[in-house]
Amino acid sequence: MPTYRLDFGYDGSGFHGYAVQAGVRTVQAVLEEALFRITGPVTTVVAGRTDAGVHTRGQVVSFWCDRELDTERTARSLNKMVGDEMVVRSCRVVPDDFDARFSARSRTYRYRVVNNPLLDPLERHVVWHVPHPLDLDAMNAAASHFIGLHDFASFCRRAEGRSTERTVLRAQWEAVDGHLVFDVCATSFCRQMVRSLVAVCVDAGRGKLDPHTVPDIIAARDRNAARGAAPPHGLILWEVKY
Amino acid sequence: MPTYRLDFGYDGSGFHGYAVQAGVRTVQAVLEEALFRITGPVTTVVAGRTDAGVHTRGQVVSFWCDRELDTERTARSLNKMVGDEMVVRSCRVVPDDFDARFSARSRTYRYRVVNNPLLDPLERHVVWHVPHPLDLDAMNAAASHFIGLHDFASFCRRAEGRSTERTVLRAQWEAVDGHLVFDVCATSFCRQMVRSLVAVCVDAGRGKLDPHTVPDIIAARDRNAARGAAPPHGLILWEVKY
Repeated sequence: MPTYRLDFGYDGSGFHGYAVQAGVRTVQAVLEEALFRITGPVTTVVAGRTDAGVHTRGQVVSFWCDRELDTERTARSLNKMVGDEMVVRSCRVVPDDFDARFSARSRTYRYRVVNNPLLDPLERHVVWHVPHPLDLDAMNAAASHFIGLHDFASFCRRAEGRSTERTVLRAQWEAVDGHLVFDVCATSFCRQMVRSLVAVCVDAGRGKLDPHTVPDIIAARDRNAARGAAPPHGLILWEVKY
Repeated sequence: MPTYRLDFGYDGSGFHGYAVQAGVRTVQAVLEEALFRITGPVTTVVAGRTDAGVHTRGQVVSFWCDRELDTERTARSLNKMVGDEMVVRSCRVVPDDFDARFSARSRTYRYRVVNNPLLDPLERHVVWHVPHPLDLDAMNAAASHFIGLHDFASFCRRAEGRSTERTVLRAQWEAVDGHLVFDVCATSFCRQMVRSLVAVCVDAGRGKLDPHTVPDIIAARDRNAARGAAPPHGLILWEVKY
């Protein structure tokens, strides 16, 4: 029973998030329905469950299948079936112990902010428009406190009983082509974590929060200590490393 | 009766082109309806009528109004009314003889092609995806023949009796960040002209057309001599100069 890995991306605008939910259109439902037509019943494991409206470039899924698949043909067929909101970049055979979720060493998310008084309508589905002036240094000062092993309970929509300890490896804002781009890499993230980190950074950038208070927000381990969540459409799951 | 100039842009995806047409949603209808609420009955003149699905960054409109408008406030109010598919960058008073269409010295359009086997879904509304390998030099060889004063009848959806002579000032393909970007500047363009020029260049890039035959296509002055039109969603009216 070979194990397969799919690398793919999607525009999250038209989906109610990744995971299957009754009554709504999700990425997993569309992908598994297409896969089913090639493999028959199949269970997939995903690297990063994304919330409604969040995009991905480097999403990864693994699955087991009792058939030998022609991997190139599988990728091509899937691409035809899933439509233009999704792209399957590759399908390949991986070692039996590969698991898209648990084998991942790190995940990188990218968040994009446009910090101009006006927004180009062509970008509105893939950036957060913040018209107020932002101080990039203050945003990076805030972000620097995220790095390392912390309990990120203040930044997570909590699933009862689950650990919210995570190791952030990199958290950096850069000004690129008129955008403020936040790249954050961690072993894994809890729910809403990236968007909650972004909200704190943007409040620091607007001067509404002193970056020196970020360690206190972390230490509080209380969702109410943070600043809500930045909108989903600015977020892209960029890369998963194994 | 002061004359005003509006600079604006829009995502053409949700509009049936610029010009008012009965029964469909157009940019002009949405803009004039918003403007009407500020100025009362008003007639606008536009720099570049765009076809359904074509985007703009630097579109310009002029209008006469018997009221003195607070220009900053007008731009702000319009932005609230037109929604996020459109952005009004500025409103200003201009000399009485200014006419967005006839005062324009040149128009620059940009067309973007993604030339990879796979397309990032996040780009699908703003690029033309050409999966077949393209030869950039052949595309530029074809484009070089457009420059100068020619009768572009072969490249125009013809309006009976109207001249199709135009002066192309620049026509150049460049590879930028994984895109092939075509910038074409002319005193003005006839209908479907940019997309027809792009279609010829892409056929040259695919090896389906010898760039040396482009002068013959021009000389034919026959719409059937060219290669149809590239899809509208790759096209942006980039800049109008006065």
